[in-house]
Amino acid sequence: MMTWQDKLRQVDPYEAGEQPQIKDLIKLNTNENPYDPGIKVKEAIQCFQSSELALYPNPDADELKHVIAKYHGLNDNQVFLGNGSDEVLALTFLTCFNGQEPILFPDISYSFYPVYCHLYHIPFQKQPLNELFEIVKEDYYQPNSGIIFPNPNAPTGCLVSLEFIEDILKHNSNSVVVIDEAYIDFGGQSAVPLLKKYPQLLIIQTFSKFRSLAGIRLGVALGNPELISKLYDVKNSFNSYPIDRLAQVIGKASMEDSEYIQNNAQKIIKTREWLKKELKDLGFVMPDSYANFVFVKHPEYDAETLFHELRARGILVRYFNKERINQYLRITIGTQEQMQKLIEEIKFIL
Amino acid sequence: MMTWQDKLRQVDPYEAGEQPQIKDLIKLNTNENPYDPGIKVKEAIQCFQSSELALYPNPDADELKHVIAKYHGLNDNQVFLGNGSDEVLALTFLTCFNGQEPILFPDISYSFYPVYCHLYHIPFQKQPLNELFEIVKEDYYQPNSGIIFPNPNAPTGCLVSLEFIEDILKHNSNSVVVIDEAYIDFGGQSAVPLLKKYPQLLIIQTFSKFRSLAGIRLGVALGNPELISKLYDVKNSFNSYPIDRLAQVIGKASMEDSEYIQNNAQKIIKTREWLKKELKDLGFVMPDSYANFVFVKHPEYDAETLFHELRARGILVRYFNKERINQYLRITIGTQEQMQKLIEEIKFIL
Repeated sequence: MMTWQDKLRQVDPYEAGEQPQIKDLIKLNTNENPYDPGIKVKEAIQCFQSSELALYPNPDADELKHVIAKYHGLNDNQVFLGNGSDEVLALTFLTCFNGQEPILFPDISYSFYPVYCHLYHIPFQKQPLNELFEIVKEDYYQPNSGIIFPNPNAPTGCLVSLEFIEDILKHNSNSVVVIDEAYIDFGGQSAVPLLKKYPQLLIIQTFSKFRSLAGIRLGVALGNPELISKLYDVKNSFNSYPIDRLAQVIGKASMEDSEYIQNNAQKIIKTREWLKKELKDLGFVMPDSYANFVFVKHPEYDAETLFHELRARGILVRYFNKERINQYLRITIGTQEQMQKLIEEIKFIL
Repeated sequence: MMTWQDKLRQVDPYEAGEQPQIKDLIKLNTNENPYDPGIKVKEAIQCFQSSELALYPNPDADELKHVIAKYHGLNDNQVFLGNGSDEVLALTFLTCFNGQEPILFPDISYSFYPVYCHLYHIPFQKQPLNELFEIVKEDYYQPNSGIIFPNPNAPTGCLVSLEFIEDILKHNSNSVVVIDEAYIDFGGQSAVPLLKKYPQLLIIQTFSKFRSLAGIRLGVALGNPELISKLYDVKNSFNSYPIDRLAQVIGKASMEDSEYIQNNAQKIIKTREWLKKELKDLGFVMPDSYANFVFVKHPEYDAETLFHELRARGILVRYFNKERINQYLRITIGTQEQMQKLIEEIKFIL
């Protein structure tokens, strides 16, 4: 006889980066943007009529969709909106990866990919990055039900070129190829121009990093109208909830403040390049990151020890106790001032 | 050879109630609350610091959870928060209904229940309501992997008593029994007091109706700590996104304005009782609704025709073209003024 407890699902909970409530902590563990989302977002919230909250949102988020499409030079029907890029990713797995063969993604990559596969019973095969943490494109020439990787990759920060992506697309005209561009705006080149030629390409972006909006839930998929409309069909078949009203107006305001936001990204890039040099001078080695984080190890200093020493000094970075990367730390690029403090503390520790 | 299109999931998209952009429309089709969410929500939005949006939210939404727990006389660890009660429902199905037997719910009920079953491969059996649209409690005495029904039921508005629910709980000590209380605050009695005695009881509520917050995404589950912690484990195993920052402060402000909100519910109840009498005087028949809608049919007037005639006159109600209920209309309770206009138009049509 099964009890009610026996009927509960057994799972291993994911452990997200810490969100500690420590005062004056320098928080460099979840790749948040150190800059403000901008004056237009501020004004949009201040002007928002709270009485509108009594009504369900516009289910299609038309205005927000339109400004996003325009920003990328696409049509409105090439834009899918979801509550955070994690929701968009989960829906993408459910919608696009229903073949017989396994789907393919790198062994070192976003940790939720295998999780979505388990949830939706999707077979998958992890393709190992090479020793430089680079994706080997020939690994993606074999039969598959779909391909996904972040560009730049996480947590390594390694970027691939549009030629590289195009090569994978050419070898995979019968599978959806998903490029997860959460970090593309920190020096990479978006695959959006390839959408014209490759109907099986889907690009996923987020408002959390580049647009300093981790506090709301807003993610985007860009693709051909057939693929986008299928994503909406699947979403609407079991999830009628649209983007909430405030997120719609905040997202729109952010799109209209893109120049300010690009300036912030330039500042982050400049700080990142400065940080790379400082860390290299201290003996750290790292893949060349094009994201708002660096992924570093010190040949003579244990990563987990360094993680704890930094934490004790009020600086929180990310340590992954996982095969191949357990001697690395992922450090979010904060303000120049925060990075200077980081370097000071590391010098002290070493 | 499968094409990329062959690998896309095949679905029948759900059709939600219309959200038309027609000026001066009286919108009585999606059970929204006609009253403002209140001055405290307004102030919370105005005082919100947009710079906070750059950071991920508090993943546990501790403050919001605490005020909800306090409101219901529960401990914080008895409260689960999700992005809308639809997310909470979907997670509940995934988490709680993993037995061998089918789960049980009424044949006329929330249309997403079978959808979640299909999505998560959960066998189910629909138990027919009786001719008065009442749940027959003996139908829930058989072996099952879980039970769920709304109270009041939707779209009928029929309420069951706490004794009725307790009887079902006594017959089902080995299954999770979920009471979906989206509409409980319009005259029903919540099953929260039963949580003390029945560890397998889970109660789901929403901020969309009673609290006039359909525009954000906020749903709640109340249950024993073991069940609540399991819901979080399952959620966190594939979905790291917490309640967004604005929804957390708006939800908290709403909880602190409960007296104002209860007054609105009293107004809605008064209007509903007035509307019932008026409609009966015009020959309509209906189950006795305890929700913020009525479910009515006219013995001599086709429901779909009436739906279209009302729409042509700027009043939108809900028509379901489904077995057993295709001669009924579901009409949301708006303001007294809107209901007077509705009665006028119906008189004109009849």
